[in-house]
Amino acid sequence: MKLFRKQYNQPGTRPGVINENNKGELTLSVFDYNANQLVERHDATAEQCTAHIHNDNITWVHVQGDPDKVTLTQLASDFGIPELLIEDVASMGQRPKIEMQEEQIFTILTLPLQTKEGVSLQQISLFLMPNTVISFCGGKFNPFAEVNSRLSAPAGRLRKRQADYLFYSLVDTVIDWGFPVLENYADRIDATEDLLLDNHDKNILQKIHSLRREILILKRQIWPQRELINTLLRDDISDLISPDTKVFLRDCYDHCISILELIETYHEMTNGLMELYMSIVSLKLNEVMRVLTIIATLFIPPTFVVGIYGMNFSQSAGPLSMPELYSPYGYVGVWLIMLGMIGGMLLFFKKHKWI
Amino acid sequence: MKLFRKQYNQPGTRPGVINENNKGELTLSVFDYNANQLVERHDATAEQCTAHIHNDNITWVHVQGDPDKVTLTQLASDFGIPELLIEDVASMGQRPKIEMQEEQIFTILTLPLQTKEGVSLQQISLFLMPNTVISFCGGKFNPFAEVNSRLSAPAGRLRKRQADYLFYSLVDTVIDWGFPVLENYADRIDATEDLLLDNHDKNILQKIHSLRREILILKRQIWPQRELINTLLRDDISDLISPDTKVFLRDCYDHCISILELIETYHEMTNGLMELYMSIVSLKLNEVMRVLTIIATLFIPPTFVVGIYGMNFSQSAGPLSMPELYSPYGYVGVWLIMLGMIGGMLLFFKKHKWI
Amino acid sequence: MKLFRKQYNQPGTRPGVINENNKGELTLSVFDYNANQLVERHDATAEQCTAHIHNDNITWVHVQGDPDKVTLTQLASDFGIPELLIEDVASMGQRPKIEMQEEQIFTILTLPLQTKEGVSLQQISLFLMPNTVISFCGGKFNPFAEVNSRLSAPAGRLRKRQADYLFYSLVDTVIDWGFPVLENYADRIDATEDLLLDNHDKNILQKIHSLRREILILKRQIWPQRELINTLLRDDISDLISPDTKVFLRDCYDHCISILELIETYHEMTNGLMELYMSIVSLKLNEVMRVLTIIATLFIPPTFVVGIYGMNFSQSAGPLSMPELYSPYGYVGVWLIMLGMIGGMLLFFKKHKWI
Amino acid sequence: MKLFRKQYNQPGTRPGVINENNKGELTLSVFDYNANQLVERHDATAEQCTAHIHNDNITWVHVQGDPDKVTLTQLASDFGIPELLIEDVASMGQRPKIEMQEEQIFTILTLPLQTKEGVSLQQISLFLMPNTVISFCGGKFNPFAEVNSRLSAPAGRLRKRQADYLFYSLVDTVIDWGFPVLENYADRIDATEDLLLDNHDKNILQKIHSLRREILILKRQIWPQRELINTLLRDDISDLISPDTKVFLRDCYDHCISILELIETYHEMTNGLMELYMSIVSLKLNEVMRVLTIIATLFIPPTFVVGIYGMNFSQSAGPLSMPELYSPYGYVGVWLIMLGMIGGMLLFFKKHKWI
Amino acid sequence: MKLFRKQYNQPGTRPGVINENNKGELTLSVFDYNANQLVERHDATAEQCTAHIHNDNITWVHVQGDPDKVTLTQLASDFGIPELLIEDVASMGQRPKIEMQEEQIFTILTLPLQTKEGVSLQQISLFLMPNTVISFCGGKFNPFAEVNSRLSAPAGRLRKRQADYLFYSLVDTVIDWGFPVLENYADRIDATEDLLLDNHDKNILQKIHSLRREILILKRQIWPQRELINTLLRDDISDLISPDTKVFLRDCYDHCISILELIETYHEMTNGLMELYMSIVSLKLNEVMRVLTIIATLFIPPTFVVGIYGMNFSQSAGPLSMPELYSPYGYVGVWLIMLGMIGGMLLFFKKHKWI
Repeated sequence: MKLFRKQYNQPGTRPGVINENNKGELTLSVFDYNANQLVERHDATAEQCTAHIHNDNITWVHVQGDPDKVTLTQLASDFGIPELLIEDVASMGQRPKIEMQEEQIFTILTLPLQTKEGVSLQQISLFLMPNTVISFCGGKFNPFAEVNSRLSAPAGRLRKRQADYLFYSLVDTVIDWGFPVLENYADRIDATEDLLLDNHDKNILQKIHSLRREILILKRQIWPQRELINTLLRDDISDLISPDTKVFLRDCYDHCISILELIETYHEMTNGLMELYMSIVSLKLNEVMRVLTIIATLFIPPTFVVGIYGMNFSQSAGPLSMPELYSPYGYVGVWLIMLGMIGGMLLFFKKHKWI
Repeated sequence: MKLFRKQYNQPGTRPGVINENNKGELTLSVFDYNANQLVERHDATAEQCTAHIHNDNITWVHVQGDPDKVTLTQLASDFGIPELLIEDVASMGQRPKIEMQEEQIFTILTLPLQTKEGVSLQQISLFLMPNTVISFCGGKFNPFAEVNSRLSAPAGRLRKRQADYLFYSLVDTVIDWGFPVLENYADRIDATEDLLLDNHDKNILQKIHSLRREILILKRQIWPQRELINTLLRDDISDLISPDTKVFLRDCYDHCISILELIETYHEMTNGLMELYMSIVSLKLNEVMRVLTIIATLFIPPTFVVGIYGMNFSQSAGPLSMPELYSPYGYVGVWLIMLGMIGGMLLFFKKHKWI
Repeated sequence: MKLFRKQYNQPGTRPGVINENNKGELTLSVFDYNANQLVERHDATAEQCTAHIHNDNITWVHVQGDPDKVTLTQLASDFGIPELLIEDVASMGQRPKIEMQEEQIFTILTLPLQTKEGVSLQQISLFLMPNTVISFCGGKFNPFAEVNSRLSAPAGRLRKRQADYLFYSLVDTVIDWGFPVLENYADRIDATEDLLLDNHDKNILQKIHSLRREILILKRQIWPQRELINTLLRDDISDLISPDTKVFLRDCYDHCISILELIETYHEMTNGLMELYMSIVSLKLNEVMRVLTIIATLFIPPTFVVGIYGMNFSQSAGPLSMPELYSPYGYVGVWLIMLGMIGGMLLFFKKHKWI
Repeated sequence: MKLFRKQYNQPGTRPGVINENNKGELTLSVFDYNANQLVERHDATAEQCTAHIHNDNITWVHVQGDPDKVTLTQLASDFGIPELLIEDVASMGQRPKIEMQEEQIFTILTLPLQTKEGVSLQQISLFLMPNTVISFCGGKFNPFAEVNSRLSAPAGRLRKRQADYLFYSLVDTVIDWGFPVLENYADRIDATEDLLLDNHDKNILQKIHSLRREILILKRQIWPQRELINTLLRDDISDLISPDTKVFLRDCYDHCISILELIETYHEMTNGLMELYMSIVSLKLNEVMRVLTIIATLFIPPTFVVGIYGMNFSQSAGPLSMPELYSPYGYVGVWLIMLGMIGGMLLFFKKHKWI
Repeated sequence: MKLFRKQYNQPGTRPGVINENNKGELTLSVFDYNANQLVERHDATAEQCTAHIHNDNITWVHVQGDPDKVTLTQLASDFGIPELLIEDVASMGQRPKIEMQEEQIFTILTLPLQTKEGVSLQQISLFLMPNTVISFCGGKFNPFAEVNSRLSAPAGRLRKRQADYLFYSLVDTVIDWGFPVLENYADRIDATEDLLLDNHDKNILQKIHSLRREILILKRQIWPQRELINTLLRDDISDLISPDTKVFLRDCYDHCISILELIETYHEMTNGLMELYMSIVSLKLNEVMRVLTIIATLFIPPTFVVGIYGMNFSQSAGPLSMPELYSPYGYVGVWLIMLGMIGGMLLFFKKHKWI
């Protein structure tokens, strides 16, 4: 996960300029439905999408991938989207935000996805207009597959309700994709904790650090969504969202708060793991040092003693010149002295609870 | 205690879908009472429970255990509970929440229980409707046994008052189960502190870490309950809760805050214990190193000296070849030099307060 | 100071049940006064106290010690105190709180006392009713002795004003007992700091830890009093407290905030002391290790050299077998080599600023 | 980056006194435009600037550099700027602030710039008056070059709109200059992280510390800008800013919050890096100590053994005087003992997972 | 700087009692002025001061030093100051506070002063009444000397405006004395940082700790002043402060916030310095240990080898008794073995990047 993900223009550039770097690998899908019928078209062109606007059915246009300037400009003019918002859709790495106007609600969300390579963050842009919803999703994975299939069921609530319920369903789906990600993080935290306490692993420090880093970035991206959904729940919001749908949005708000509290808890947990790691390292150092000290303390003094009697002072120099060497009990006496030293040390260690 | 406890459906699923994993090991109890009479039925069926709805008495249905989809659906339709709320009842590991409607108050609480294996967290769901209270409690332990027995006393306040007072009693009981849990944590913190300061225990690091982890998870689960009870106390709440009962709820709110402040204090205490542990480890390392340094410093220099006079330079090579070996006071002189070295070291150590 | 001090009943118990553990060692005092006269009675009975209610004078009943159920129940019925409040009075270790009713203000405060054994926390309960104040204080020490003696002065403001001024004086006295406690903590922090920087004390770690622990518990007990006094200052409060007395309460509020800010500062200071302690321990370890390294580095290489020339390779084996031993300058040469080694080491240490 | 950057007068000095230290190296530019025409003059004098005030076109005066007292006083009197504000313009190192009056909005912003020597902070002062904008920018770099060139395009929105849109464009430009700075910090943090985990660099500690210091100072300077732009967005603000322009300012506010959240994240990241660094240092110490302990433990005991048989106890002293030396298998036996010792050690190390 | 600085009376004492410990070393100055004339009297008596009250001019009484009970009581009665406020003036070490009444504004401020011995905190008490300002300043240093001299200028704004402008000037001066103090702290922090990174200083730990302690105490004293000045800016404040003066007070408020943000930044900086210090200590320990390990590892094994060939096993005991000693290449072979050992070690160290 990158620390800095925002695409930005040169400071001073006119607002509303669309970044031209995007390659434009995109697929358009359009759903045109009411309680009775459903028209579904995949790999559509922009023209085909706009053809569905002016009827009384609900139209959902889903743009998957990395939209280029031409497509965006055409969709913007067909659906009447202001250029400031289209710039936001086009530049990836935005902070989640909401813009409310009389006849239009625009929101950018962050979709966390658990992939094999780790967690990836995609930008989701949603427009709600009367009878129309437009959704943009970066990357190749379509997070709304489940919603697509629910649309096929004629008796489902989704088909019977207005565009705001579809909008809610998309928002709720984006939020709920956080749960598998967080479940996975919980597993990683637990696994790291077990690794820490049971065994020795060279890379564990890197693992804890990258866990912490990822959770920090995730927190920053998810945090603004709480306020965003709260804005949708306010009473004085535009008529685009009906009170019936707000009941469901409140449920979605609860999920959002659950996710944030979990992220907060994980953040504290990873800090705790780092501290735990350092304690364990200190503890192991302590143990190693204790062994070294015991060995050195047991053997250094006797080694000094045997060194003494390895000196070559000449017997012929006089009676003070190492007479012990010529005593019949000298060797035995030296052994006794050394054993006494070692025994004293061992008692000292026992007393200090080192062995 | 698990880090991630929430049961969730696949993102995009229709709201209100009940998780079908539940085994449905449950017992139903129903209490139907007024000031004059009490009908009490345990191990009831769902039909028996609903039979008690349409009279003027107060009906309390208590569902203990893990309710299956069929029972939940039937209770929901009999008592008029919305499907979104029934989904919440069915999926364990929810964040405490409250939903207020004209004729219904729904709340999810977390019940902390001190068991022999440690602290367990159960989800309690409570519905308050006119003359009716429905309670769901996971697990096998019935936390409301004391309330049951109070119902038997005809003169008790519980029998004389309305359903809101029963509802308050259940909420209060759930909150108060936090006190024995926290008393136990205080004992564990104190015990760990004593262990830390008095003695050496290999597993103390794990103990501190799991204390911290448990308190962190507990805090996350209990924290939202404060806001929840505060909501019940608001003036503009539905008429289901009478001002008389609010006096008691305010007392319950005080208990809730006491518990949260204790958790906060314990959280800081466990952080302090971790720091204390690391200080003690550093201190012990210091002591070990001091012993090693003293031993090495006392014996390494004399060992070098005795090594010198163990060299075999031949007397025959000339007068500069180790003449000390042939001096009558050589051996004594070497001893004096070595004792001088050791004495100097001891003075140095005294000066630096190492011995 | 105990971590968990609250006395609580079994969860689910009826609210208002008085804990029966209390031994009931208590003394009752009653003061009945107006600007002109003062009746003072110590060691009174509950009946004597209630005899003073129904006149126009101001009545102050002070209960010192551990009140039993009988006395509490009688006082409650005589003075019209609700049973929920009497339960709070009876169970020690409560969080400071305030309850305001039409004709009654009830407040629980925490009195910190500096005793020889350390700081103790007592629970103070105060009732303000028209012309009546009732105060309960745990333990044996009467914190209101100074107020008693002020009552004797006929010209004093205390005698001329209403019951609310007496109530204020009691609250203010309880708050102000925090100052000697905090002054004492400041002294202990300063003493610990000096000990840390000047000298070596085995128990200093325990001292810092218990300072931190006590300040943490104190903070938790004092913190709610700020909000409590703020409630008394609100404009829309019952008429029991006159605007004139609020001027004095505002002064009391300032004292309360001063105390909280001091506690906050001490809390940060003790955290800083713990960090300082760990830095000093690390620093000392560093110094010890430097000495060890210097000694070992100076003597280990020359010891190796003298070992070489202590080998017994036979001169008779051939010309490559230790010819140095038979050179006339061999011994001198070895000394030069060793001195060179030691000199090189000393230069290395100088360069690295170790000596 | 300096910790203390504010220029201040002697305490007690009359407010509005302009610091006379400034050298007055400045260039004045003036732009006088409407939708149809543009007059642009660089290196103008103060008189030339004021000549453009009294027409209906929009006038933008840009002061680049370090304005002296004379120029400031003249501009102030010509454009009617209060002396308190001119003092703020003249003293560098101010906190970002906004002053709103009936006919004038004054704001001080901080411009972060990525230069080759590191990040520099410039003070930008902006005045918005009817049809007039005055901007002051310290240093030599003109951050508004892009805006200048946009002014040349006759069809551009900048030319068609009022002075408030120009004012917004300048504010937005200043805010957006934060993005390249933060992108650079992200790169530096990532580079430091890689350095930490892969390799050993002596200066890495200094690098982390200066990163943390810079981000801390940056945070302090940028933080007030959030509130400042929020003030511009308030409904009840003076008529100088039209609702149309507020739509753009809201976009600018989002950028400002993005930047602050990034700074906050980087702040936490650098704290995490410091902790990571200390963990790695501890880990390396541990590894070094393990090697030392293994070496010492393997060789110290056998060295003691060989020392024993280097003693010179005389065979002639008696049968207890080192009989091993004369046994035909003595030497081989000693080798076996020593190999046994070493083997035992190696098993011990294997068991403790040290090798 | 003392941790506990508040002078307090025995708990329970009547409010308004003036501490009698003060020695009463004070000087009184009185200024009586309007736009046309100025009467200035230093070393005045209390009577001389009160003589200036009842005219239409503005009267400023400045009390420098430690006022005794008599002077305070007289000033209080002459100028109509309530006794609660006079108690605050008399007891030093108060928390900054503000008291607003119909005809009187009272405020206590903390004046930080940079002296040669370090930073000292003085208590400033200010009274604003119609046409009258009274100021009390502890210590000997008069912080208002600059204001005094500005009063002498007849054309100055100070002479033309009302008492509220004088009051503002005094408040502003007290706040602004914070800047030199903070500039000095910035220098001390920078100096400590340089010392830390460049060199080794025994007392650096104490320096960092006392910096942190001082900044913590300063923060506590300055913090309440922000709220205090904010109170003066409120719209509904008494008429004593005119809207014209509020423009200046807003400037003063900005200064106050600048100072608090600087203190906050310094607080974080000193925490960072402590961490940096501990990292450097760890790093140095690491380096020392590496040297020790290299030395020991290089020499301990060869020392063991030379020990082997210093053993005295008798050649006569048999052919297995140290035959190497009698081989013509034995000595050379031992050297080769030892050089091989040392070379292997050096390769190992190179691989682990220790040398």
